[in-house]
Amino acid sequence: MAIKYELIKESKECNARLGKLHTPHGVIETPIFMPVGTKATVKTMTPEELKDIGAQIILSNTYHLYLRPGHELIKEAGGLHKFMNWDGPILTDSGGFQVFSLGHLRNITEEGVEFRSHIDGSKHFISPEKSIEIQNSLGSDIIMAFDECAPYPSDREYVKNSLERTTRWAKRCIKAHKNPEKQALFGIVQGGMYKDLREQSAKDLLELDFPGYAVGGLSVGEPAELMYEVLDYTVPLLPKNKPRYLMGVGSPDYLFEAVVRGIDMADCVLPTRMARNGTFLTSQGRVVIKNAKYKKDFNKLDPECDCYTCQNYSRAYLRHLFKANEILGARLATIHNLYFLLKLMENIREAIKEDRLLEYKNEFYRKYGYI
Amino acid sequence: MAIKYELIKESKECNARLGKLHTPHGVIETPIFMPVGTKATVKTMTPEELKDIGAQIILSNTYHLYLRPGHELIKEAGGLHKFMNWDGPILTDSGGFQVFSLGHLRNITEEGVEFRSHIDGSKHFISPEKSIEIQNSLGSDIIMAFDECAPYPSDREYVKNSLERTTRWAKRCIKAHKNPEKQALFGIVQGGMYKDLREQSAKDLLELDFPGYAVGGLSVGEPAELMYEVLDYTVPLLPKNKPRYLMGVGSPDYLFEAVVRGIDMADCVLPTRMARNGTFLTSQGRVVIKNAKYKKDFNKLDPECDCYTCQNYSRAYLRHLFKANEILGARLATIHNLYFLLKLMENIREAIKEDRLLEYKNEFYRKYGYI
Repeated sequence: MAIKYELIKESKECNARLGKLHTPHGVIETPIFMPVGTKATVKTMTPEELKDIGAQIILSNTYHLYLRPGHELIKEAGGLHKFMNWDGPILTDSGGFQVFSLGHLRNITEEGVEFRSHIDGSKHFISPEKSIEIQNSLGSDIIMAFDECAPYPSDREYVKNSLERTTRWAKRCIKAHKNPEKQALFGIVQGGMYKDLREQSAKDLLELDFPGYAVGGLSVGEPAELMYEVLDYTVPLLPKNKPRYLMGVGSPDYLFEAVVRGIDMADCVLPTRMARNGTFLTSQGRVVIKNAKYKKDFNKLDPECDCYTCQNYSRAYLRHLFKANEILGARLATIHNLYFLLKLMENIREAIKEDRLLEYKNEFYRKYGYI
Repeated sequence: MAIKYELIKESKECNARLGKLHTPHGVIETPIFMPVGTKATVKTMTPEELKDIGAQIILSNTYHLYLRPGHELIKEAGGLHKFMNWDGPILTDSGGFQVFSLGHLRNITEEGVEFRSHIDGSKHFISPEKSIEIQNSLGSDIIMAFDECAPYPSDREYVKNSLERTTRWAKRCIKAHKNPEKQALFGIVQGGMYKDLREQSAKDLLELDFPGYAVGGLSVGEPAELMYEVLDYTVPLLPKNKPRYLMGVGSPDYLFEAVVRGIDMADCVLPTRMARNGTFLTSQGRVVIKNAKYKKDFNKLDPECDCYTCQNYSRAYLRHLFKANEILGARLATIHNLYFLLKLMENIREAIKEDRLLEYKNEFYRKYGYI
């Protein structure tokens, strides 16, 4: 087996849990947030900087790497770890989500998905077998089954057909997987916002005995309360001795609510994308640094943060960098936002350990301005 | 006196010399190349990274900082060093060159230059007194007299009038300078490509006893041979016990030829600007990384370089970053190009010490493809 999940502790207050995920490239303490390195780079960051701020695992995108520079090239380079100079664990998605959200003129059949590249309009076809072939070439520690993430809202009939096809595709992924000893293939539970369909998807996928499970199809535009409701009934369907990954979630409240409901892993481009637009996550809520009120604000960005950015630069300087479109601004913001979320997850793990997660959540929410 | 130049050794082969320039923020070994941090940041780099690659002094631009964020704001922040978190020496230019090259609708009078901002079209006036006021607010270790850099080609009459006004402006700069104990004001020798005018400019400025002298008005479009000729007769006019700064020069050949002729300091945006366009300076000449031939080139960029980029990444990965417009590409290229020039200057200093600069120059030129 490529990975092993070790359950360290279950919270006495809620469904949160502490764990360790052993992978071929190191041990990950869960729950964890995974920075996204779409095109074989976490935008603006070096691998050393990622380690410095506490990143334990990063995510990269199969769809993007397949189109450019191509998975054969990365294989020839010695795999994704070597190509991008990151020796820690990597998770790659299946390409499914991007094919649907970025590809043009897509056509879904039982066989797979035909689409046109968002870069040059060229025609491509990704099937479950192709997705696994690409991910085998990349050599990531955790790979994902090729699925359809149904849009929100979708009617019951559409979601049912989609999840059943996703299950059939999952079986084909297992069969196509050439490297199960070194790469763990996760199944993805779909089913939209329908309880019985989530149950059907989970039941069918559990029979396939994946080494880990993701909850897909959430954070796709539905109200937060609805997402929490789906997590309430979906997460308990998943096995306790395997990691649980919520895809596409990265705001502090979503992370807290997911962890409280038993999620171990999450990823999102939100903190890095917001960083490049000059929006900082801080203990007192979001700071839009271009606002005029920060012009002569010589204080540190977040008084409670001890990241490189907060230790060395003022709000006025950060604002100047963004007003002048300087790359250093995007760098300093990315360092801070990722550090903020990784530190948050560390604090969350500490709070689970001491059975005071709900208290910590309330305290954080009050300061941040959520409540 | 704010600075002290210590002449360590004169070459037995040519006019090159080794020195130490003592400044309020540290000692600089000369000859040296100064990375340019136009808007209070050397594009893409942190101050720590600059130190790591051997930067001893950086340059920043008065014109840009005056327009944005404004020199009063930087003064309020505690000066430019503190604002940008760089505790090494800083040289600021006078703003003259940018007023002429970037400002719109400029109007030169004896009093100063009226122009419109290239950012928002707003009207501004910079006089010698204003330039010094701005540079006093910034607190840079070395500040420059406000001059006119005559375009190439210009007729003799124009250049003569211009340099005489520059000399009158230089006197006003000295008078306006509020902080000569902490900031050294350099004079700028002009005179275009006319030997007698260079002599006139140097003679007049030497009477003003500046703590250092720059050679201005070169590398403005004239043939390389003409620039070398002007340096041949201009540099010997400058005092031996003071630093000599050639403005706007940063290609390896220009640096070699300037040092051979007795120059101690130089600056240019070339290495950093080229870096952001994906052009790398290497021991074997320029590498345009986007070229198709590097697609599957898994070798290091420059086999002779031991910078962070060359130690950790392949040409194929660097090419991928540039093809995908990833910021990390600009970062890795900037690190390499600046390291390359700073290391070159270190090698040049070593060669001067051992009286083998001309041999080293020939060897470098052959490998680089200059000859």
